[in-house]
Amino acid sequence: MVLFRQELGDVLRNARRSQGRTLRQVSSDARVSLGYLSEIERGQKEASSELLVSVTDALGLPLSYVLREVSDRIALTEGVTVPDTIPDSLADETGTLVGAR
Amino acid sequence: MVLFRQELGDVLRNARRSQGRTLRQVSSDARVSLGYLSEIERGQKEASSELLVSVTDALGLPLSYVLREVSDRIALTEGVTVPDTIPDSLADETGTLVGAR
Repeated sequence: MVLFRQELGDVLRNARRSQGRTLRQVSSDARVSLGYLSEIERGQKEASSELLVSVTDALGLPLSYVLREVSDRIALTEGVTVPDTIPDSLADETGTLVGAR
Repeated sequence: MVLFRQELGDVLRNARRSQGRTLRQVSSDARVSLGYLSEIERGQKEASSELLVSVTDALGLPLSYVLREVSDRIALTEGVTVPDTIPDSLADETGTLVGAR
């Protein structure tokens, strides 16, 4: 089962590392305890909505962006293409057209 | 401050209502208490990751879809266009071109 907190933790950790920052730096900027942020990043604790704002602010990322990343990661595991899905009927049609060329 | 739990609650409630279902029906299908689901929908409680899976399953929606809706709603309040943002330099250029026509 894909869990929100695990994907969120991965996204936050990846963002922090890509900025070359330590847990200590980001937890200090976000004014949350290092231990709590560490647990969030490892997907061991649920992040409160207020913490999410603090941490995304500290990372300089819009909350919407972080959530979209999480959504995209979960979509991959679901096998769902979120923005545009082609109905089976149209997909079949496309297949026929390609075959007819 | 835009909070994740409030936008999530709105998305879950809108989805349930668009299906013409009651809190009682969805809470029963999701095997969560009606009171808890009600608090989630009103943005008063944080949803655990496990609850999110149960409720989105009960609604027949991929979790990724629900999170994307939440992300889109938050992006609107942030004034962020998530997929494609035009750098200021290009936006200026476009403005100049339009002005020159």
